[in-house]
Amino acid sequence: MEITAAMVKELRSQSGAGIMECKSALKETQGDVEDAITFLRKKGLAKADKKAGRQTAEGVIGSYIHQGSKIGVMLELNCETDFVANTPDFQGLVRDIAMHIAAARPRFSTREEVTEDVLAKEREIFAHQAKESGKPENIVEKIVTGKMEKFYEENCVLEQPFIKDTNITIGDLIKQKIALLGENINIGQFSRFEI
Amino acid sequence: MEITAAMVKELRSQSGAGIMECKSALKETQGDVEDAITFLRKKGLAKADKKAGRQTAEGVIGSYIHQGSKIGVMLELNCETDFVANTPDFQGLVRDIAMHIAAARPRFSTREEVTEDVLAKEREIFAHQAKESGKPENIVEKIVTGKMEKFYEENCVLEQPFIKDTNITIGDLIKQKIALLGENINIGQFSRFEI
Repeated sequence: MEITAAMVKELRSQSGAGIMECKSALKETQGDVEDAITFLRKKGLAKADKKAGRQTAEGVIGSYIHQGSKIGVMLELNCETDFVANTPDFQGLVRDIAMHIAAARPRFSTREEVTEDVLAKEREIFAHQAKESGKPENIVEKIVTGKMEKFYEENCVLEQPFIKDTNITIGDLIKQKIALLGENINIGQFSRFEI
Repeated sequence: MEITAAMVKELRSQSGAGIMECKSALKETQGDVEDAITFLRKKGLAKADKKAGRQTAEGVIGSYIHQGSKIGVMLELNCETDFVANTPDFQGLVRDIAMHIAAARPRFSTREEVTEDVLAKEREIFAHQAKESGKPENIVEKIVTGKMEKFYEENCVLEQPFIKDTNITIGDLIKQKIALLGENINIGQFSRFEI
């Protein structure tokens, strides 16, 4: 099938990708624009993964104080250069994540940050609950593993569904911006206060 | 000496105190307005001390992000009622303390918050320095005590000189507002981030 200029134009306006990238995406998907968007997005995320190890010494500190001043969040979001830190896209990401943290109350950034104490306590509670319900030993183990996954999803900001678009996690949202801005991006630290 | 209405008026405009309070302050100071201000301020601080034990379950969370977004402070300042929390005086105090923390980099709220680890390490460094200089044992002890006082002044926000008026500490500033607003006020917690 032929890839027309109109199709490329539509894909460009929807994906923001370059002309050559749009053409090859449309060839890959036999001219289906929706599929081409997905294709480009996956490619972007793959690119993002490659940037994951890069050092992020620049960034922005932002805050979100919820109306009424009883809930507040301060966030350090890091990137590689001051140039990217000053873009509206990056600063919008800071605001989005700060607002998300205010609403979703994460306790940690990543699952690696959860302390051994917390893990042991959670596991004990889940194991106790499973045993109480009379489940056999090998099933208890599986239930605990499943519940721990759930615990990570609920308490680690990178694994939480983004409050403004619950189809993606905050980790996915950051990856999209890495693909868009071409630099590695990391949550440095955050604080959440509530009265 | 006679206390004239004009003197009372002047003292009122400068201190914000009531008519009767101004009259008795002026009697106390033989009509000296400057001394009367000091007298009223001391009386206010004494009143403030009486409120020190009262519970502070309300308050405001505020933030100060320094220009350039590389330094940020979030502060929880507590008081007794939402009514006081919503006053411009209280909210101005939140802003002043947050800005002060951004500039003065305190590590703790009060000296009681300094951990044993930190104390032991500081004492060891000071003792080592004093001994190196060849001072006798009993003098070393005095030097260390003096240096620890200095350490508290430099690292505990309540003991730091207020950056906008170095004649008073942040603790004094808070006491002034307690006297003005008639409620106990406490720093709940703060975070300071810097990239």
